[in-house]
Amino acid sequence: MDEMKKATREQSKNHNKTLILNSIYTAQTISRADLARETHLTRSTVSEIVSELIEEGLVEEAGLGKSAGGKPPVLLQLIDDARQLIGIDLASGEFRGALVNLRGEIQEWICIPIQEKSGDAAMEDVFTLIDQLVQKATSPIIGIGIGAPGIMDSVRGVVRMAVNLDWRDLPLVEILQDKYTLPVYIANDSQVSALAEYKFGEGEKEDNLLVVKIGRGVGSGIVIGKHLYQGDSFGAGEIGHIKVEEGGIQCRCGNYGCLETRISSRAIRNFAVAIAEENQDSSLYQLKEAKHPITTQDVHEAFLAGEPKIKEFIEDVGAYLGRALSFVVSVLDIHRIVISGSVSMFGNGIIEPALRELRGCALSTIADDVQMVTSSLGEEIVILGAAGMVLHNELGIL
Amino acid sequence: MDEMKKATREQSKNHNKTLILNSIYTAQTISRADLARETHLTRSTVSEIVSELIEEGLVEEAGLGKSAGGKPPVLLQLIDDARQLIGIDLASGEFRGALVNLRGEIQEWICIPIQEKSGDAAMEDVFTLIDQLVQKATSPIIGIGIGAPGIMDSVRGVVRMAVNLDWRDLPLVEILQDKYTLPVYIANDSQVSALAEYKFGEGEKEDNLLVVKIGRGVGSGIVIGKHLYQGDSFGAGEIGHIKVEEGGIQCRCGNYGCLETRISSRAIRNFAVAIAEENQDSSLYQLKEAKHPITTQDVHEAFLAGEPKIKEFIEDVGAYLGRALSFVVSVLDIHRIVISGSVSMFGNGIIEPALRELRGCALSTIADDVQMVTSSLGEEIVILGAAGMVLHNELGIL
Repeated sequence: MDEMKKATREQSKNHNKTLILNSIYTAQTISRADLARETHLTRSTVSEIVSELIEEGLVEEAGLGKSAGGKPPVLLQLIDDARQLIGIDLASGEFRGALVNLRGEIQEWICIPIQEKSGDAAMEDVFTLIDQLVQKATSPIIGIGIGAPGIMDSVRGVVRMAVNLDWRDLPLVEILQDKYTLPVYIANDSQVSALAEYKFGEGEKEDNLLVVKIGRGVGSGIVIGKHLYQGDSFGAGEIGHIKVEEGGIQCRCGNYGCLETRISSRAIRNFAVAIAEENQDSSLYQLKEAKHPITTQDVHEAFLAGEPKIKEFIEDVGAYLGRALSFVVSVLDIHRIVISGSVSMFGNGIIEPALRELRGCALSTIADDVQMVTSSLGEEIVILGAAGMVLHNELGIL
Repeated sequence: MDEMKKATREQSKNHNKTLILNSIYTAQTISRADLARETHLTRSTVSEIVSELIEEGLVEEAGLGKSAGGKPPVLLQLIDDARQLIGIDLASGEFRGALVNLRGEIQEWICIPIQEKSGDAAMEDVFTLIDQLVQKATSPIIGIGIGAPGIMDSVRGVVRMAVNLDWRDLPLVEILQDKYTLPVYIANDSQVSALAEYKFGEGEKEDNLLVVKIGRGVGSGIVIGKHLYQGDSFGAGEIGHIKVEEGGIQCRCGNYGCLETRISSRAIRNFAVAIAEENQDSSLYQLKEAKHPITTQDVHEAFLAGEPKIKEFIEDVGAYLGRALSFVVSVLDIHRIVISGSVSMFGNGIIEPALRELRGCALSTIADDVQMVTSSLGEEIVILGAAGMVLHNELGIL
């Protein structure tokens, strides 16, 4: 009974500490009196916890605020660089990692090309990446967050399936915790992208948010009620394999007509090459003739140059995206959709046709308020989301 | 400051009371000592709150439990009939209402056919229904819960759009609260069906649940993390207007090829009539010739009799449902799907082809664990969910 009381008191103290830290994090600067008002905690509890936070080097005093009659209050602020987080993106083709401060600012960035490596060889590269980041750290590291394509069991810390890396039921969290004695968290890369956008993205902070990631693969992450929603088996948001056409092309999942076969960067390059072959005046045709492998960037340039066939084709990409999102919006009724990943470079080239298709396919009461924008977080979105996962799990910062 | 402290103390007391009431509700019978263990509250707080609950007539002592050495503990239990809830289903064609006890047992049931009534005339029927239920009450009524087809703003208490009743931006909650001086709650009928299934349905209580309602309209309700998820504009789960075929039939929403045009009871009757016209040996043909309006029940009988064309057609209904659910499952990754509404009478006739289609269209890592069953709550599902909403909002019972 005493044990339990102690545990309960400990829990409630941690809860109060999280409340206070979140208020300081959000407010930029805030006085102890305002903290008490905001958190509904007593002045003495606030003072005690703030002293702890100052002692731990997480918070500092930052001058005086405006007087409300009496003595001007001492302001408190977060020390942004007090701790570092490691964020890792196990992307196809290359592993990327960074040291990130408490505000999501990237302070060191490393990229390791992994080509076709998989299994143990790929794991060695993960070690190399983390080793290098640990060496470069300038503040205590709180933990390691990892985003990877595939099905990641975030609770057990197990990679259930990462096709590209040929990892199945791999206890990645245990392996890394043993090696680095740091807390480690994993989640699917599209899912952590949603966290990144929620924590560090531009625009108003909505309680519900959908982030679509369109690169080599296609997936999405869903924030519901301020929290990442992962589903019953961590597969929530796997929209890349929604069927968007009868028949269609065979997908790497085995089915036919999946969204991914129409809008992934790979699909875009393949279709663009096919179009180029039939249009010898296309810039892509010249590239192909020069044996230059066509990149998404090349297709984007042809699109910007206004090549009609490419414009038409990108419009179709947007329409397929819009069709799939009409399903998502009918289910979730989420107004804010953010597009990330390399294909987001097409911007309004895909967003406009996507919105048109979405509005033609979903109830207007739901579809009318949908806003679609591209992410401002660029290629680092997965790294930031992975770091954000650590920030949330270790410091309770939402 | 004192005001605030008082408010905080009041809040925390309500929170503790809810904790204790939920434990008693779930446990059937439980001692004060076990309540303290379960809720992590002190014995004296538990005793104080239990005394209040007994005084309010919600809880009673129910004999002695097993001794764990010393004196055998006094057991507590909920008085199931201590209060009544009013649940209302504003279904198309008829309004239904019931008095329900705290366990979701229906104690009085009333149905008013409304034919084509709408606007103020329909509102008069709502009053009549509630008047009659209030008169029949045998315990204090806690509140009124209402489920209706359309978009219901549960926060503002406003019917944003109920096409059949021709209600738009109608402040239904305010109107009824003023008239009956009771708390009133509204939500979409498919959404409250999910609450009903979560609170009173058979099977294990999963944190996440999808309930599909297929009747005159088609919709669904989503429970995420034990709570009803309604989306940014209360339209979450509106899957009846997901596009399941190119072209297709025009839907009452204006679009073409919506799920509703393929699987609603209306759609089933219309298709069955068309099939009957071409098959003079069908039982439906005889009914039609006898000028008998064909009901879903008639189609079901022809299906049970094994009429090949009808069996084939019902298989298609299941496949369209499965296609739409493959989208839903790809987004939500929810394993437990419950089918309700009049069309659920076809049972495995639609569930088997639906599961086949779903598994052919969604990633196997997500689709393999999906289970689909029909609801055991029958026609009362909306009434029960509406009552459950009151139970949750007024007593905090999950």
